[in-house]
Amino acid sequence: MSEPRGRRGGGRAGRRAARAASAETAPYLVRRLPPVDILDDESLELIERNAETILSEVGIAFQDFGEALDLWRAAGAEVDGELVRFPPGLCRRIVQDNAPAVYTQHARNPARSVKVGGDATVFAPNYGSPFVMDLDRGRRYATLEDFENVVKLAYALPQLHHSGGTVCEPVDVPVNKRHLDMVYAHLRYSDKPFMGSVTAATRAADSVEMARIAFGGDLSARTVMTSLINASSPMRWDATMLGAATTYARANQACIISPFILAGAMSPVTVAGLAAQALAEALSGMAYLQLVRPGAPVVFGTFASSMSMATGAPTFGTPEAGQAIYVMASLARRVGVPFRSGGQFTSSKLPDAQAAYESAHTLFPTVQAGVNFVLHAAGWQEGGLALGYEKLILDADQLGAMAVWARGVDTSDNGQAMEAFRSNAHGDHFLGNPHTLANFEDAFWRSDLSDAASYEQWAEEGSLSAAQRANARWKQLLADYEPPSMDDALDAELRDYVARRKAEMPDEIG
Amino acid sequence: MSEPRGRRGGGRAGRRAARAASAETAPYLVRRLPPVDILDDESLELIERNAETILSEVGIAFQDFGEALDLWRAAGAEVDGELVRFPPGLCRRIVQDNAPAVYTQHARNPARSVKVGGDATVFAPNYGSPFVMDLDRGRRYATLEDFENVVKLAYALPQLHHSGGTVCEPVDVPVNKRHLDMVYAHLRYSDKPFMGSVTAATRAADSVEMARIAFGGDLSARTVMTSLINASSPMRWDATMLGAATTYARANQACIISPFILAGAMSPVTVAGLAAQALAEALSGMAYLQLVRPGAPVVFGTFASSMSMATGAPTFGTPEAGQAIYVMASLARRVGVPFRSGGQFTSSKLPDAQAAYESAHTLFPTVQAGVNFVLHAAGWQEGGLALGYEKLILDADQLGAMAVWARGVDTSDNGQAMEAFRSNAHGDHFLGNPHTLANFEDAFWRSDLSDAASYEQWAEEGSLSAAQRANARWKQLLADYEPPSMDDALDAELRDYVARRKAEMPDEIG
Repeated sequence: MSEPRGRRGGGRAGRRAARAASAETAPYLVRRLPPVDILDDESLELIERNAETILSEVGIAFQDFGEALDLWRAAGAEVDGELVRFPPGLCRRIVQDNAPAVYTQHARNPARSVKVGGDATVFAPNYGSPFVMDLDRGRRYATLEDFENVVKLAYALPQLHHSGGTVCEPVDVPVNKRHLDMVYAHLRYSDKPFMGSVTAATRAADSVEMARIAFGGDLSARTVMTSLINASSPMRWDATMLGAATTYARANQACIISPFILAGAMSPVTVAGLAAQALAEALSGMAYLQLVRPGAPVVFGTFASSMSMATGAPTFGTPEAGQAIYVMASLARRVGVPFRSGGQFTSSKLPDAQAAYESAHTLFPTVQAGVNFVLHAAGWQEGGLALGYEKLILDADQLGAMAVWARGVDTSDNGQAMEAFRSNAHGDHFLGNPHTLANFEDAFWRSDLSDAASYEQWAEEGSLSAAQRANARWKQLLADYEPPSMDDALDAELRDYVARRKAEMPDEIG
Repeated sequence: MSEPRGRRGGGRAGRRAARAASAETAPYLVRRLPPVDILDDESLELIERNAETILSEVGIAFQDFGEALDLWRAAGAEVDGELVRFPPGLCRRIVQDNAPAVYTQHARNPARSVKVGGDATVFAPNYGSPFVMDLDRGRRYATLEDFENVVKLAYALPQLHHSGGTVCEPVDVPVNKRHLDMVYAHLRYSDKPFMGSVTAATRAADSVEMARIAFGGDLSARTVMTSLINASSPMRWDATMLGAATTYARANQACIISPFILAGAMSPVTVAGLAAQALAEALSGMAYLQLVRPGAPVVFGTFASSMSMATGAPTFGTPEAGQAIYVMASLARRVGVPFRSGGQFTSSKLPDAQAAYESAHTLFPTVQAGVNFVLHAAGWQEGGLALGYEKLILDADQLGAMAVWARGVDTSDNGQAMEAFRSNAHGDHFLGNPHTLANFEDAFWRSDLSDAASYEQWAEEGSLSAAQRANARWKQLLADYEPPSMDDALDAELRDYVARRKAEMPDEIG
């Protein structure tokens, strides 16, 4: 069902052509490197058996959502109050028989549509932070202006393939209305693919309606949103998430079905334990959506991290969290559906060395494990409580390096460079060699932010830290920002929808 | 010749026992994860064929060192002036027939002896920087006091397995005498294994003599130094390095035979091109030392990085440099000798986000590629020109996380945690579960430096950056430092040797 792993079709010329296409034109990463598995098949089968034991013996609760229970009863599961127990293999079979291995999420600008699954990796920005932080103003509650700024920056940053969803919480807008402003901002200030609201079924329905307007009609044959549905771990789906997910699935819109686990609290404290649970939860959620609408696009998601033994605070960039990404990615490949995990996580309150170490030690496993959809790929700070403006810029720069990792090592004749050896006099440097001159410009990934200058030059330029350079960069990007084009009538129709819906509801303060 | 890859002997109980032993007692990492290869066998064979073409057609120069030419002539190579051309397969066969796959480097404290090769990974500090930098005093020339400080810090940091060599250049000591102070400092202020001087054959001989004194006599059956021999790339070994290497090999001391390559200058600009060259250079150097003394321990080394297309400055933490680590590690495994590469590299002048991203994006590939000896594992800053005190502390902290990565995922019954699911009421959190309580303390890697506290608590504690916390840490470590024990008579003998040798030479200013 999933695409073959590590396939390298088309011979050398085909590889070169595909590589060139992916590097220059595909609006997402195309991984040529086979994904890395850190557990062998025997160990993965063990975890799969444990997941089936959890599904059949412990069961999963579908809370306050009777229609899910009815569907499960009809599908042959044992329903006991709100608790559903699944005959071994049932959820897996439903998913494998119905869910697509790969789907396309269409963007308003077709050149930015992304493939989700298989050998594709899509980077989306931070999600869900109530605060923002930058070097000038420090940490503060996020506003709609911040939200729009982040959407504009994600639009301007080529390393981000996706506009994301709740890139930060615009807390200055009433909680029951902000989804309208957020969806509008994604549609108006970007033309990259985006995520819909999930905080209530009605808000999901608003997201679908606004997408219908923006995409000019029926969406039943077009997936234009991929939205985030978190489990209420352990072993529980709540009515809010089920309501939103059901709304999206009925409209053929994609859902990321994502256990959200801090190991030790929402799951056992071990990687193999949390993996079995996350697999069980994800299978139950994805299977449910296939009962709602067979073939509805679903992404197997996992958010898993560790915690401080001293304080109970979540910790990020730890090796255990990285191992969970690898293990879950392997398990998702064996199911045969797209996988979401990882990002660039940190507990740090600053865009400092801690932030970068922790982020890198999440990002590299993410890419090497073959994750398909990477939420939080840039901007996450303070354990997710804050979107960092400088962190967004710094992280995005690192995403650029991941494109080179994904491409793999070129072993074409040009890559082998044997003519360089043959044309150089013995011991001569290669700077002037024709092979070097022909390849120099594209040979190495070029960071937009790293400083490789001499100490003296760096000092002369103000002895700036990476965070200070990033500060200048996001201001410049916002100053240079120009919105993508949108038909005035369409814009007016979207604004009217937002205004009408806001007028229909009294403000709720969250 | 090398140990089997990914072997997991002794069943589950054996794995658990070995894991516990490695975590708690082995003074180096024992990798249970199979190393990752990013090229397939066919591509690696292609690079090996290209290396043989370089060896047989382009040849390698052994400059100003007649005895090497004599040995090569006798071994069947074609010697043309100082240029040696090798029949295909000759160097590889000499290495594979003679060089050990794994050796033990004995430390003055036997509990700190390290295994080099196979499933072992040894972390050693920064090497060769003329400057040091810290937050208080900024960047300045390194002195002997700095050198001794770094030796003391490496001794105090449990994540470093090795005392290293020229951890920084003590430029306040005459260039022809500083090796004596450096070797003395490693022997006196640490009891971890160390590296000898390589800047002249006579200095290597001094290193051997001082090691003989410290280790109480003949070293022919004991390897107590692993020293760094850089090629003068492209395709060239110079007399200084050959002289030092020959001295060490005759005394049965280990040499890291290490092409030093900035791609585009010392090699072609492509990863596959530099890999073929580095393999050719390393094979020629390692084979030479097997002619000097069959069975002398050698390590296949590679230092390879990229450069800025704009300025020609070396760049670090780039994906191309990381790819080179993977490819060279695969090639070294196929030769069957220990492999040195990687570290935590950066061009940054500060212990900032750039430094951490670049370092992490070198370190993770290093560990996952299965590198055996990691020089520059902590402290490298400013493209190697400066040892950063804070960077040393920050990097060492990250090395601790690598120990968890190396251990792999626990799939024992305890790791699977099925009793946790069975003993929890449905949906309950796991914080109070007996399985959690039994495992909590050791469940997650614990950083000594990361701050996972709340924003409020962090602000109350002074809003410190990671670098500022590292600054406090190194001062505390130096304040708490106590030297390992050394017999007074032995100390006096070492001091006498240093004093006598210094008196025999006029100062040379480098």
